[in-house]
Amino acid sequence: MIALEHIRQISVASPSKIVMLVIDGLGGLPALKTGKTELETASTPHLDHLARNGVCGLIDPVGSGITPGSGPGHLALFGYDPLKFTIGRGVLEALGIGFELREDDIAARGNFCTVDGQGLIIDRRAGRITTDKCAELCEMLSQIKLEGTELFVSPVKEHRFLFVLRSEGLAAELSDTDPQKTGVVPNITLATKPEARHTADIVNAFIDEAKGVLAGQRPANMILLRGFSRLPYIPSIGEIYKLKPVAIARYPMYKGLARLIGMKIFEADNGIKEELAILADCYSEHDFFYVHVKETDSAGEDGDFKRKVQAIEEVDFALPQLLNLRPEVIIVTGDHSTPALLKGHSWHPVPFLLYSPWCRLDKVREFSESACALGGLGRFPALDIMPLAMANALKLTKFGA
Amino acid sequence: MIALEHIRQISVASPSKIVMLVIDGLGGLPALKTGKTELETASTPHLDHLARNGVCGLIDPVGSGITPGSGPGHLALFGYDPLKFTIGRGVLEALGIGFELREDDIAARGNFCTVDGQGLIIDRRAGRITTDKCAELCEMLSQIKLEGTELFVSPVKEHRFLFVLRSEGLAAELSDTDPQKTGVVPNITLATKPEARHTADIVNAFIDEAKGVLAGQRPANMILLRGFSRLPYIPSIGEIYKLKPVAIARYPMYKGLARLIGMKIFEADNGIKEELAILADCYSEHDFFYVHVKETDSAGEDGDFKRKVQAIEEVDFALPQLLNLRPEVIIVTGDHSTPALLKGHSWHPVPFLLYSPWCRLDKVREFSESACALGGLGRFPALDIMPLAMANALKLTKFGA
Repeated sequence: MIALEHIRQISVASPSKIVMLVIDGLGGLPALKTGKTELETASTPHLDHLARNGVCGLIDPVGSGITPGSGPGHLALFGYDPLKFTIGRGVLEALGIGFELREDDIAARGNFCTVDGQGLIIDRRAGRITTDKCAELCEMLSQIKLEGTELFVSPVKEHRFLFVLRSEGLAAELSDTDPQKTGVVPNITLATKPEARHTADIVNAFIDEAKGVLAGQRPANMILLRGFSRLPYIPSIGEIYKLKPVAIARYPMYKGLARLIGMKIFEADNGIKEELAILADCYSEHDFFYVHVKETDSAGEDGDFKRKVQAIEEVDFALPQLLNLRPEVIIVTGDHSTPALLKGHSWHPVPFLLYSPWCRLDKVREFSESACALGGLGRFPALDIMPLAMANALKLTKFGA
Repeated sequence: MIALEHIRQISVASPSKIVMLVIDGLGGLPALKTGKTELETASTPHLDHLARNGVCGLIDPVGSGITPGSGPGHLALFGYDPLKFTIGRGVLEALGIGFELREDDIAARGNFCTVDGQGLIIDRRAGRITTDKCAELCEMLSQIKLEGTELFVSPVKEHRFLFVLRSEGLAAELSDTDPQKTGVVPNITLATKPEARHTADIVNAFIDEAKGVLAGQRPANMILLRGFSRLPYIPSIGEIYKLKPVAIARYPMYKGLARLIGMKIFEADNGIKEELAILADCYSEHDFFYVHVKETDSAGEDGDFKRKVQAIEEVDFALPQLLNLRPEVIIVTGDHSTPALLKGHSWHPVPFLLYSPWCRLDKVREFSESACALGGLGRFPALDIMPLAMANALKLTKFGA
């Protein structure tokens, strides 16, 4: 695998354009009746056209047999090794709700939980309280004052919330207060490095206050914190690839992750047609376009084979908007598979196509899992995608003389 | 490549079963007359059935172009990088003859050799004395007494023997006494780290004694030792994968290696039918079953194409015993290729099939080298097999959120 440092050294800016269309959870498994996957069932004349005139393969986002979360899956698509660039749980929650973390912020994932009279945890999720109730309790906790430190408590979903400390000189090397089991008291947080002792004191002081604030509540009468983390340092897309990248997406997680690696963010709330309209609008000023389609993954997670088929067809139907722009490189793939049969992310390799005047054509006639398995690119790690995209856009110079 | 440490973090115990059938030296080369390999020549209706209803590929046990020994080949099958987990020559000899090494033992590979009147080596293998003669000489050397140290000298085959020191405080950082050439005197062993000096003294004292004991012998009148080593630390299958593994095998090397990584060992002396009967017997109490078939490799090593074909057919014929158990995951592959045409292990990728309710079917209709080359898994490192097996048994949780 070529390292980012090598890519940085051979990448050059140029006017050519790269569009990466990420159809979330694209890969599937065949329905028992028809023997066809969601993608194979969908009518996709435009994707098939691209596959016929491009080169195809199957990607492993993280590794063989590994079911990627959306974070690692996307990092790999953009060329960042997800085993090397890890994003802490707290930071991920922040990205997920669009909380704009600053460089020095410490973020943690919080759970409201239930403790008994002795303070022993009896439910780590407080009976999964409603998101509205969660928001109400977060508002109460936000009123807590800590000397010299700003704090934020933001609802995520049900019993989950985001906890952020903002101040200078904080450190994230802190142990979880969530013991991950019931029948015991919550832990206090401990500094795992000496420089985090001060931060540990602040967090423990906050938890003490929170305990008082929640004392009269039922079932959410206590909190658990885990995954203390700060924004990781990840070299930007601009730095590594000399690209001017934009992300066109709807959901906070994807926008947050794209922002983290230096993409400009455009929001699109109404599906692929709006996303491609935005793409056309900003086309002249940028040269890398990440377009995210969420509906396929959601349908797969719901186990709704038919809705996933329809979501794929919707993307295909809108594609001429993209083709008319004639970008030098078009990539269509997913960040992982989400077979409706498994109702969740899976480890299966993801169909991949690359279309460019400089790709070497293979014999693939349609965009599908089985056709991509016999594609000219074979099965390969997702980390190879960006170098391949850059090469086909003639944005990489020769390696060595 | 995903590291064991990552797998450890996402693996979970569950009732599903994984059977890994290792047909030693499975891969072959086509006979000149027919253009078909051993596997392609064999009639294998059951393996073909699995291939049709599973997903296939070709594995590289160690690396492209690398001919693996049985040790590295098997380590890779079980997910242990053979470039990282190295087993010393001495330990390998011990595993090979079923000598139960203890943690603190120091093992070396020994050769009987011939020296002339001046002590110069004239034959490093003592004319390949018979194994019986070797046993007789080993018995003589076993009588040597060293203060404070137990010692074992066990015959292996022809001029080869195993030398083991057992005591506290020994160290294996010792240079070989075998100069690997004739016309020179044997080296004394030197400590390559200070803490091995005491052990070096003991070994050199033993060699001095051995010289006296063998003085009247011809041609085996001296010994050479190399590959001083102790049992390596390898995290167990149970620890990494949360599996309760068993090995069903006949030959000591395979049983020894399996024991080393924490498998329970069942012996089977009468071929695949007995092995699969044992598998059925212990089926309910375990969840990972390594079944080793040796005859294919032996036939290949002997250059006996026809016998290798027959050995493959015998495995196929017994397969219904396995299929009737309905394990969630069946894997059939080899630890390396042993083409009869080459009369030895080779570097050629090995046919691989995985059968599970969750695998994504490909277009492979039969189990063969040429069909596997077009399989849905493509060509991939053997290290990916275990994560793939675990994923298909639904024993791996998501990586990252």
